[in-house]
Amino acid sequence: MAGSSEEKVALVVQNKKVVLRSHVTGFPNEDDMEIMVDTTKLCVPAGMTAVLIKNLYLSCDPWMRFRMSKHEDGGLPPAFVIGEALVNFTVGKVVDSTHPEFNAGDLVWGMSAWEEYTLVTQPESLHKINHTELPLSYYTGVLGMPGLTAYACFFEVGKPKKGDFVFVSAASGAVGQLVGQLAKIAGCYVVGSAGSDEKVSLLKAKFGYDDAFNYKMETDLGAALKRCLPGGIDIYFDNVGGATLDAALLQMRPGGRVAVCGMISQYNLVEPYGLRNLFCIMPKAIRVEGFYFTFYMHVYARFEEEMAGYIKDGKVTVVEDVVEGIDSAPAALIGLFSGKNVGKQLVAIARA
Amino acid sequence: MAGSSEEKVALVVQNKKVVLRSHVTGFPNEDDMEIMVDTTKLCVPAGMTAVLIKNLYLSCDPWMRFRMSKHEDGGLPPAFVIGEALVNFTVGKVVDSTHPEFNAGDLVWGMSAWEEYTLVTQPESLHKINHTELPLSYYTGVLGMPGLTAYACFFEVGKPKKGDFVFVSAASGAVGQLVGQLAKIAGCYVVGSAGSDEKVSLLKAKFGYDDAFNYKMETDLGAALKRCLPGGIDIYFDNVGGATLDAALLQMRPGGRVAVCGMISQYNLVEPYGLRNLFCIMPKAIRVEGFYFTFYMHVYARFEEEMAGYIKDGKVTVVEDVVEGIDSAPAALIGLFSGKNVGKQLVAIARA
Repeated sequence: MAGSSEEKVALVVQNKKVVLRSHVTGFPNEDDMEIMVDTTKLCVPAGMTAVLIKNLYLSCDPWMRFRMSKHEDGGLPPAFVIGEALVNFTVGKVVDSTHPEFNAGDLVWGMSAWEEYTLVTQPESLHKINHTELPLSYYTGVLGMPGLTAYACFFEVGKPKKGDFVFVSAASGAVGQLVGQLAKIAGCYVVGSAGSDEKVSLLKAKFGYDDAFNYKMETDLGAALKRCLPGGIDIYFDNVGGATLDAALLQMRPGGRVAVCGMISQYNLVEPYGLRNLFCIMPKAIRVEGFYFTFYMHVYARFEEEMAGYIKDGKVTVVEDVVEGIDSAPAALIGLFSGKNVGKQLVAIARA
Repeated sequence: MAGSSEEKVALVVQNKKVVLRSHVTGFPNEDDMEIMVDTTKLCVPAGMTAVLIKNLYLSCDPWMRFRMSKHEDGGLPPAFVIGEALVNFTVGKVVDSTHPEFNAGDLVWGMSAWEEYTLVTQPESLHKINHTELPLSYYTGVLGMPGLTAYACFFEVGKPKKGDFVFVSAASGAVGQLVGQLAKIAGCYVVGSAGSDEKVSLLKAKFGYDDAFNYKMETDLGAALKRCLPGGIDIYFDNVGGATLDAALLQMRPGGRVAVCGMISQYNLVEPYGLRNLFCIMPKAIRVEGFYFTFYMHVYARFEEEMAGYIKDGKVTVVEDVVEGIDSAPAALIGLFSGKNVGKQLVAIARA
C-alpha cells in the first residue's frame, strides 16, 4: 500500500472458501473441491476500484460444471483456476467500496465467489437488490440469474402465444419451476418432466403444471410426450439436452420453438449424446435457439419488477432447497447432477 | 362423364412417366424407378376443376429422396405412391383448364409429376411464369423453388448484415450457388464447400465466393473452416447436415445463425449422424432454424421480381446441368446424391 494517500485501518478476518482441487472429467464429486481457510482484510486495497462483499447466500447452478473442466473453446466461460475459490452468483452485503455506485451496507447480488468475503474487482457484475422486503435468498433464484433465465428464455426465445402447448424438462428445478408458472400466466398448456414422483407431484400441486411425468419411469420418452401432448409441442424449454431433446424434436408442431437453456444430462459425459432428430426442424420450420443470460441483461430491470409483482400477488411460488454453511457447499453442488435437490439449490453461509 | 352437360372431344396421347417401383431404404438407385407408358386424354374431365399441363422441364431436387421412403411421421411430406409418377416441381404449358385463373397456352411452374402430361387437381400449387423473356428452365431453379429457398432462407432466416462471415455447404448446387451470390450482394464475406476441385473453381470464378474448399480433400473440417474463416462464422447456410454441421457449430460466432435448408448427407442413411456439438448454441446464443419453402410462399412475388432483376443486370449467374429426355430422369436424380451434377440438375422433356 506504499504510495497510497489514504491508509485504512481494517480488521483482518478468517475467510473460508471452496476451492477447486483439480479439473474434472466425467461426473464430478465432492473430492474435486476442498475447503480452505485464508484471511481477508475487511477493506478494499487503496488505489483499487472494487467492492468488498460479505457473501450471505451462494447459488448452486449446473453451469458451474462447465467451469470445472479444462476446455479449449474460447466461447465457453473459462475454467475455474485450481486452488482458487469457485466463481458464481451470490447474494452479499457490501463491507467496503471504492466504486461510486456501491456503499457499505448495500445488499447486492451478482458474480462473486464461494467464500465468506470476496473482493469484486468488476463491480459492474453486481446489482443492487431493490426488493429487500422479499427473502434475500430469492436473488440467487427467482429474482436472480435463474429467474431472468426462465423469463427471458421463455418470453424472448420461446415467444409464447396464448394456447400454446409447452413442454419443460427438469421442470421442478430453479428455472423449470418458474417456466411452468410463467407459461400458465401466458395462457399456455404446460407439461413438465422431472426425475422423481415427489417432484412430479410438486409440479402439479405447487407450480401449476397441467400434466407431468417422471422420465426415469418411462421406457419411451416419445410415447410419454405423445400421451401428455397428443397434439404436439409448440415450445420445448430444454434444460437437459440429450435423449429428451431428441424425443421432443420429433413431437414439435410446425413453427415450433426449442429454447435451449441447459443440457444438464450432458455436462458430465466425456462423449456427448449424438442427436439424431435435428432433421425434423426443416419440414416443420422449427427454430432451436440457445440461451445465455449475459445476452439478456438489458431485460433484468423489467424482469425484476414484473417477477417481484408475481411473487407478491401469489402468482409465482418458489421452492428452495437450502443447505447451511459453506462446508456443505460441495455436496450441494454435486447433488444437482443426480437430481438430489428439490427446487432451487443454495447455500446459506451468513444471514447478515 | 355421364351426367356432364358438356362433353369435350379430345385427343388421346401417349404419356410416358417415371414411377416408383418400391419404397427405398439407404442409397437409392435407378432401379427403384421405372419408365412406364400410359395414355392421357388431352382435356380436363368434365365436372372437375383442374389444369392439364404438358411438362417441359422436370426439376431434380434432393428433397425427393424423403418421399421415396416410407415414413410414419406426419410432419414430413408424404411418401410417393408405388406405381405412380414421382411428384415434384416442373415447368409446363397449360393444355386445358377448368380453373378460372389458368388458360390453355399459359406457361406455369409448380407441383406436378414426372410424366409428359399431368392433370393438376390442386391448381393453387401452380404459378404463372411472369418472365418469359428468361429461359423457362430457370423456373425449376433460380426463379423456382430453389431460388425462393436460397433467397428466403438466407434473408429471412439468416438475417445477414453487411460484413457478416457466411459459410455455405453444397455451395455449387441449385441453392448454394445462389446463396453465395446473394451474400455478396448483401455485402458479406462468403466461403463455400463443395465435393470436387472443379466445383471449388466454379465457386470462386463464377459465383463470387471469396474462398472455397473441397471437403473431400480435407481431413479435418474444423481446421478447414478455421483456415478460411479464422474469425468464425456469423451465418452457416446448411445444405448437408451431418459432420459439416457439427464442425460449423463449433466455429459459430456469438449471436450466429444456422439456416438449415437441407441435409443431403443424411437422406440415404438408415441411421442418421449423431450431432455432438449442439451444446455450443448456449454460450454463444446461436439460433438454428429449419427452412421449408411452403412457409415462405408469401415472399415469392417479391423474390421473383428481385431475382429476375439480378439475372438481367448480370448480378446473378446461373449454372444448370440439363439432361435430355424423360428416360434420363432416374439417373439424373440418383446423381444428385453422389454429387455428379454441376449446378442445378434438371431434365428437359419438351421445349414447347
